Amino acid sequence: MKSYYLTLSCADRPGIVAAVSGLLFRCGGNILESQQFDDLETGRFFMRIVFGVAAADAEMAFRSQFEALASDYGMTWSIRATAEKRRVLMMVSKLDHCLDDLLYRHRIGELSMEVAGIVSNHPREVHNEALIESFPYHCLPITQGNKAEQEIALKRIIDESRAELIVLARYMQILSNEMASYLTGRCINIHHSFLPAFKGARPYHQAHARGVKLIGATAHYVTGDLDEGPIISQDVEHVTHAESVEELVRRGRDIERRVLARAVRWHLQDRILVNGVKTVVFAS
Amino acid sequence: MKSYYLTLSCADRPGIVAAVSGLLFRCGGNILESQQFDDLETGRFFMRIVFGVAAADAEMAFRSQFEALASDYGMTWSIRATAEKRRVLMMVSKLDHCLDDLLYRHRIGELSMEVAGIVSNHPREVHNEALIESFPYHCLPITQGNKAEQEIALKRIIDESRAELIVLARYMQILSNEMASYLTGRCINIHHSFLPAFKGARPYHQAHARGVKLIGATAHYVTGDLDEGPIISQDVEHVTHAESVEELVRRGRDIERRVLARAVRWHLQDRILVNGVKTVVFAS
Amino acid sequence: MKSYYLTLSCADRPGIVAAVSGLLFRCGGNILESQQFDDLETGRFFMRIVFGVAAADAEMAFRSQFEALASDYGMTWSIRATAEKRRVLMMVSKLDHCLDDLLYRHRIGELSMEVAGIVSNHPREVHNEALIESFPYHCLPITQGNKAEQEIALKRIIDESRAELIVLARYMQILSNEMASYLTGRCINIHHSFLPAFKGARPYHQAHARGVKLIGATAHYVTGDLDEGPIISQDVEHVTHAESVEELVRRGRDIERRVLARAVRWHLQDRILVNGVKTVVFAS
Amino acid sequence: MKSYYLTLSCADRPGIVAAVSGLLFRCGGNILESQQFDDLETGRFFMRIVFGVAAADAEMAFRSQFEALASDYGMTWSIRATAEKRRVLMMVSKLDHCLDDLLYRHRIGELSMEVAGIVSNHPREVHNEALIESFPYHCLPITQGNKAEQEIALKRIIDESRAELIVLARYMQILSNEMASYLTGRCINIHHSFLPAFKGARPYHQAHARGVKLIGATAHYVTGDLDEGPIISQDVEHVTHAESVEELVRRGRDIERRVLARAVRWHLQDRILVNGVKTVVFAS
Repeated sequence: MKSYYLTLSCADRPGIVAAVSGLLFRCGGNILESQQFDDLETGRFFMRIVFGVAAADAEMAFRSQFEALASDYGMTWSIRATAEKRRVLMMVSKLDHCLDDLLYRHRIGELSMEVAGIVSNHPREVHNEALIESFPYHCLPITQGNKAEQEIALKRIIDESRAELIVLARYMQILSNEMASYLTGRCINIHHSFLPAFKGARPYHQAHARGVKLIGATAHYVTGDLDEGPIISQDVEHVTHAESVEELVRRGRDIERRVLARAVRWHLQDRILVNGVKTVVFAS
Repeated sequence: MKSYYLTLSCADRPGIVAAVSGLLFRCGGNILESQQFDDLETGRFFMRIVFGVAAADAEMAFRSQFEALASDYGMTWSIRATAEKRRVLMMVSKLDHCLDDLLYRHRIGELSMEVAGIVSNHPREVHNEALIESFPYHCLPITQGNKAEQEIALKRIIDESRAELIVLARYMQILSNEMASYLTGRCINIHHSFLPAFKGARPYHQAHARGVKLIGATAHYVTGDLDEGPIISQDVEHVTHAESVEELVRRGRDIERRVLARAVRWHLQDRILVNGVKTVVFAS
Repeated sequence: MKSYYLTLSCADRPGIVAAVSGLLFRCGGNILESQQFDDLETGRFFMRIVFGVAAADAEMAFRSQFEALASDYGMTWSIRATAEKRRVLMMVSKLDHCLDDLLYRHRIGELSMEVAGIVSNHPREVHNEALIESFPYHCLPITQGNKAEQEIALKRIIDESRAELIVLARYMQILSNEMASYLTGRCINIHHSFLPAFKGARPYHQAHARGVKLIGATAHYVTGDLDEGPIISQDVEHVTHAESVEELVRRGRDIERRVLARAVRWHLQDRILVNGVKTVVFAS
Repeated sequence: MKSYYLTLSCADRPGIVAAVSGLLFRCGGNILESQQFDDLETGRFFMRIVFGVAAADAEMAFRSQFEALASDYGMTWSIRATAEKRRVLMMVSKLDHCLDDLLYRHRIGELSMEVAGIVSNHPREVHNEALIESFPYHCLPITQGNKAEQEIALKRIIDESRAELIVLARYMQILSNEMASYLTGRCINIHHSFLPAFKGARPYHQAHARGVKLIGATAHYVTGDLDEGPIISQDVEHVTHAESVEELVRRGRDIERRVLARAVRWHLQDRILVNGVKTVVFAS
């Protein structure tokens, strides 16, 4: 049996579930998981189905009929084999705890992806070479004047590596608006605060100065509006007055890597649907 | 528009969702929420749907047709109006933090229930009379020899008060096997440990003696097998070596009342389906 | 044996612990708990000691000698019997979940305080009269023009009730700068967000609009600068896209009451020392 | 300035803090951190001080005088330079997420240790060779008959590598009672459940079968009594009915590695004192 992720969204109206599940049944599909959400404020409907088909050509039959149905309902949709590994490009600066964590999870098969490459604004010697040696490594150092040029190089790397997802795994350079727009919907960033608190630079320093009693991290899709993209996942830990900025940074590394890994896993399993400035996350 | 909770479980087979959602659509129902679970180990399928109908008689039409469908599939099922308040009987001993909490939530409309009464093995003076004065209060003191007799009285109270749910809100008397069986599926207990750790008496003393670094509470359905009923909800908090048994008890009160309130709310919203010795919880 | 809380802060220099513990020992005191903190950034030292003395006059002897020592070191300090119950004035608007919770904890002896009174800008009928009937109740309705006048009345209530701590238990009126300054260091507010996110009005609406994946609450000391006072305690819970503003409000009630109760308990046990715009919290 | 960890425990009696802090002050030491605990049940006193000294010979002077004081009070004690890196031997079976995590933390300087070596009952090819290539690797395969012999080899490795701490980072072989006793007080194990729940083998399977709503991990010192050693650190995460054993295992990996890393860091900073079957943990 082969299985597929089906995701869709459209204006809500009665009968969507009946139509989709009826079609699936007639095509020999079996629903393995199903989650849905009605946004009562916007009238928009979101759905994620994992379905299995036994016959080799059943998916093709379903897909072609589903296209007509989707067109009727004005759906935005996607069907993707669960076995398909998506190509992911990692971007990193000096701090590589998130990169290290994602590569470890990749190595033991926890993330269904292929590493399309690693982009850094630092030379490879900055990182543990043992970790990265089996992946294409692109060093794109950023100077005051070369950002536009390097972003052109970055686009080429994305295209040539056929990366479907770009992960900013503590990539500390600000992307241009144009680049951010180019990446919309397929680029996840990890911000080291519980947004919307402590936007911008050095959030652990901000948190320490304010004396908050918890610190956190936020994974979000990148949009042109810095630190304002749709939030995917957040987490926090309790801290005390006795913890220095350095200790907050250490504590934060653990939060960042688990929040980012969760967001990437959800993306790879088609669990996240963008809903305006927010996300619908059909978590397991 | 009126809305309803539909819950069902049956042996899994293709087409269930299509059949149910198709029937709902034909009867003019609109699905507001839908959650499902395939237990791959047992082959059993579980579903909870919240649906709305506009026409006054649509629910009757759906219900009668659904009965036939449910019979075909061998379903265990229930349809209940979301507006219907269920009658809940609270049982308590001396410690009344859980009772107090549930009554407060009831007062502000957080729990969709009617208080069918309060049963205690202590006289009402033990409690804050202001809290309980508006509810029927039954004092059933337990002595060495009178348990069987008092359980007969308890059954009568349950029957006469038409209680649909019995909540053991820190009721510290052990029910007979026969009573526990009588209550199966409609009685929630709060145990003051993260089961299966620290079964039996004085779990905070056990936890302190063992030196664990977290304490917790467990809400579960009552069965004949003490502390072994299907678990509904659990939570824990971190504790340190410096906390005495009394402090664990104080910390525990907070955990107990939030875990129990969550379990009761889920039950009242038909979110919990029993799956053998376990539960399926379609949480919000 | 009688026991006492000793708290102190001063510029750090070697020998403070030796001086204080040496004096305590010579006066027949025994240290039961001791916590300290060196703020390396400001060079300020903070300490909290719980000590016991057997002889009736030992505390007096210690206190008089400690005064001299404290003067030498330029200490801010306080000695208070642990058995002494502090007088607490509660302020509330319509939503009384925090008030209810604090009164319950008071009733079962969890908080070492006397209730000096309840101030509300609503009439007593708004609340569960059974809960509040045994305490002085002051209704100070706020209209567009009478805030200054009502704050004079409030000051008189504070003075006449000898309240040492004022708790804004979801009191939804903004205090004047002058009133806030008057209350500095002895007034705890609960804000319904994880500050500094979502300052100001309707934080749950703000949180819902932004699509954050956790909501929280913050207990802080009141200062003239709204929502900027020193933070005492914070907590959060995870939420999903499916939770409406109303559900966030419900979830928030639980967070608010436990965060506020914790802050009040810490204050009553002299566990909180203000350190500029931050707090040092010697938690248990 | 050089700094030191001082830990001590003894029968409680008045004047200990005065004696220790007075001596430190007279020797030119400055207290940077200080934590203490009176176990009221056993009458035992525990203390951890971090102190700094400016003069090169001050520590020697303090140490020699402290020896006399410690002897007077019958103290168990230790003084250790904070800069001293302790030698740690890692033991692992096939699953190397904890090993990987500890080595990453070591590489970025988060753990103050030297890796004395890695012992596995599997050949090095099982692991990511890039990760382990810079450390001595000892393969001690266990067969039905050779455990005694391999434990002799293990003791030799421990002695020759001068390992001060042995970390069982998911080492899935049961040590003999004799070996466990040999390692008492210097060997940390990670157990993949929230002990005392689910002792013994395959705890995630046990957890899944019981239908618990949270899973966890426990770091503890190894003693002759399997899964009964003094608990250092525990954590849990919420799980649902929908998560398979495989998903619990994945979730558990994250909990295990953060719980174990925390326990190892605390041990390396002399934050853990054993108190009978329990621990005193002076956490930051």
